[in-house]
Amino acid sequence: MNIPMRTYLVTQGDRSGARGTADVVRAAIDGGVDVVQLREKHATARERYELGLELRDLTREAGVAFVVNDRVDIAAAVDADGVHLGDEDLPVSVASDHLGEEAIVGRSVSTPEAAREAERAGADYLGVGAVFATGTKDVADDEAEIGTARLADVAAAVDIPVVGIGGITADNARAVAEAGASGVAVVSAITDADDPAAATRRLRRAVDEGRGRVAR
Amino acid sequence: MNIPMRTYLVTQGDRSGARGTADVVRAAIDGGVDVVQLREKHATARERYELGLELRDLTREAGVAFVVNDRVDIAAAVDADGVHLGDEDLPVSVASDHLGEEAIVGRSVSTPEAAREAERAGADYLGVGAVFATGTKDVADDEAEIGTARLADVAAAVDIPVVGIGGITADNARAVAEAGASGVAVVSAITDADDPAAATRRLRRAVDEGRGRVAR
Ligand code: NI
Repeated sequence: MNIPMRTYLVTQGDRSGARGTADVVRAAIDGGVDVVQLREKHATARERYELGLELRDLTREAGVAFVVNDRVDIAAAVDADGVHLGDEDLPVSVASDHLGEEAIVGRSVSTPEAAREAERAGADYLGVGAVFATGTKDVADDEAEIGTARLADVAAAVDIPVVGIGGITADNARAVAEAGASGVAVVSAITDADDPAAATRRLRRAVDEGRGRVAR
Repeated sequence: MNIPMRTYLVTQGDRSGARGTADVVRAAIDGGVDVVQLREKHATARERYELGLELRDLTREAGVAFVVNDRVDIAAAVDADGVHLGDEDLPVSVASDHLGEEAIVGRSVSTPEAAREAERAGADYLGVGAVFATGTKDVADDEAEIGTARLADVAAAVDIPVVGIGGITADNARAVAEAGASGVAVVSAITDADDPAAATRRLRRAVDEGRGRVAR
């Protein structure tokens, strides 16, 4: 797997204001988002399945990677590109067996040890955080702030791409990329933005700058 | 699918006293249980997966049917015989496509209309309840008591087997079977019993009597 992960949107309808998640995803695609993850923490499996079918259409048309949080069965049912797993979810190896070797399997970790273990288990990328403490709770409430120094340690420990998550904004995204992350995963920085497309572009520019690339 | 469903155990570790769920399942198998459903409402997916592997071994060795509640991916991962789905879960057709035609796909319903719809969608059996109001909450808290008259209406509406659930004990299981149910699904009546094997036998005998068979 070698897909770009500069900007990675995690959906959450109840933090998308009056807009629906599909509208936010359309705008993020317009802003050049690389990956969309269906999360919708408070929705039922049936609701996530229905929304997943819709987001799959949108992302496929745009050539944007689409993954589903937690649920391997929903990922399979909507023909997502992969799944994102945490400590409480099915093991990476089970997801890979189930979805096939082509599938993208991401794993949430917060330490270099866990990162190496996930890489050995076959994870294709890592979500690492919470990089910054935040009231926006892009990650689980009990996720402690690890800062960019630990993020750098995690990124250095593995060869697979690492995306930072937790309290990331256009203002601090550059520091996340400078720490070695391939990109930034956000909820509110895009879903809550007045202009989600512009917010996505700002994040991407910050990541490009941090990674020493010319911003496009 | 034509498996017996006279006694159907729904697991719930936190209502199994000091025993673990595996111990309760062993005892229920000893008592002649026909189906075991892994529910464990408060466990993480990872925990259900690990426990599912263990229960799969126990049930396979005994030739007992084993299904997983809600999660098609966990059912597939532990090689269960099937899955049991509710209104908030993935559709029956998605589960059948995913697990294959041999898989047992059950569906929770409480009306004849929903029963016919589930049968048309390909459900192999129905869980119908709550038959009796109960403090033990074998079904969702918001599940209203439907009584044996409505259960009889549901059973009469479809050709697939129907199991009653909700507040069922050895004392009222006969009435559930007399209403047309193929069997009874229980949590507490087995998990909370002093002797889960004996409790399973009593339930089975009551169902056999209700179905007009000679108790074995
Ligand atoms: Ni599958």
